[in-house]
Amino acid sequence: MRAAAIIAAAGQGARMGGPMRKQYLQLEGKPVLLRSAELFLNHAAVEEIIVVVPADDTESAAELLQPACPPGTVKIAAGGATRQESISSGLSALSLKSELVCVHDAARPLASEALLDRLLAAAERHGAAVPVITPGDTVKEVNGEGFIISTPDREHLRLVQTPQVFRRDIILSAYRNAAALGLEATDDAALVERTGRPVVTVPGEFSNLKITSPHDLMLAAFWLQEKKEAADK
Amino acid sequence: MRAAAIIAAAGQGARMGGPMRKQYLQLEGKPVLLRSAELFLNHAAVEEIIVVVPADDTESAAELLQPACPPGTVKIAAGGATRQESISSGLSALSLKSELVCVHDAARPLASEALLDRLLAAAERHGAAVPVITPGDTVKEVNGEGFIISTPDREHLRLVQTPQVFRRDIILSAYRNAAALGLEATDDAALVERTGRPVVTVPGEFSNLKITSPHDLMLAAFWLQEKKEAADK
Repeated sequence: MRAAAIIAAAGQGARMGGPMRKQYLQLEGKPVLLRSAELFLNHAAVEEIIVVVPADDTESAAELLQPACPPGTVKIAAGGATRQESISSGLSALSLKSELVCVHDAARPLASEALLDRLLAAAERHGAAVPVITPGDTVKEVNGEGFIISTPDREHLRLVQTPQVFRRDIILSAYRNAAALGLEATDDAALVERTGRPVVTVPGEFSNLKITSPHDLMLAAFWLQEKKEAADK
Repeated sequence: MRAAAIIAAAGQGARMGGPMRKQYLQLEGKPVLLRSAELFLNHAAVEEIIVVVPADDTESAAELLQPACPPGTVKIAAGGATRQESISSGLSALSLKSELVCVHDAARPLASEALLDRLLAAAERHGAAVPVITPGDTVKEVNGEGFIISTPDREHLRLVQTPQVFRRDIILSAYRNAAALGLEATDDAALVERTGRPVVTVPGEFSNLKITSPHDLMLAAFWLQEKKEAADK
């Protein structure tokens, strides 16, 4: 089954503090965005990649990506004011009719090929698949004043990552539905959930962290070193 | 206000894989358990420390801790089959009538003095205080087959850490209540919540990770290096 990938790189990365948006920062000698794109560039099932960047960044993103990518493999699209608008803009930029669409955050440069394989297989079977990890800590629900309201049963809670993989018709109809009803969500699966479609979870990866602070960038470098050492053994 | 500390070190650390229980592993040249105990040894408000270890470990724990601790500051207690039983055994071993009781996991060796200060102040004011961080990822509720049931509003969810600090009467009555009703929970705050008492949250620390795998031990070493470098600047 053929897949397209949409990589969301349109965030402003306010928490990084520096002048550079996080997706362009170097991680072990390579920009974070390029590492995130390589997951899909290197995968045989992926036939189209759309990278969504801030509207004023399309040229610099093209300069960064194109030398590293075979001609025509990566298309740059201009993002919107929110992540959801940016993904929507990425969906509109799809030109092929791939059966599956992977939505990924550029800020997660360490997702593995094995993870993508699991997700593609699960999405092919169930229509929508997302990677999750079990929280190591007890989860609490708090009120606006910071007092605990409840302790939800941890056994049934998961932390969700990207890539999230969907059948093309399912993600398109979820975004149409969200636009029609004015729904907002912090991940794409939530929009699919709102259409009543099942979303299956597959085991994610602790190393598949999201880089949102300078410290995360150092942790990611540390994980990369680890992976290299494991591969060299 | 005076405080006692109970350090839970009675876990079997099955996930570490090695022959050694995680609390005895070396972290940058010092056992994890000793680093966790030092938080309380070095704090002026703490007048009594109970370390709860597996029943067959009391001698080796004493050998490990006592050379590093002033005589009489640390008492070793034998743990039970569950964390909750172990804390209960620690509560029974308290000999002074400290107003506050801190319950801490030995597997969190990096909690800072500033965090403990915040917790003591908040527990003095509200009776029960726990450190929390905001999950960076969207949280999902799943069913037994791994399908997503719901996406709880992330704005109100927190991941809870230790130390958790309580007024002595509040934690004692929570444990009595749990024993009477046969309640089990993954953290102490949940037992207090079940008595209807308020529990306030204070900002936790990303570096205050729980060591449950060999990888966590390496991450902890990395955080320690970071803290040293920050302190040297």
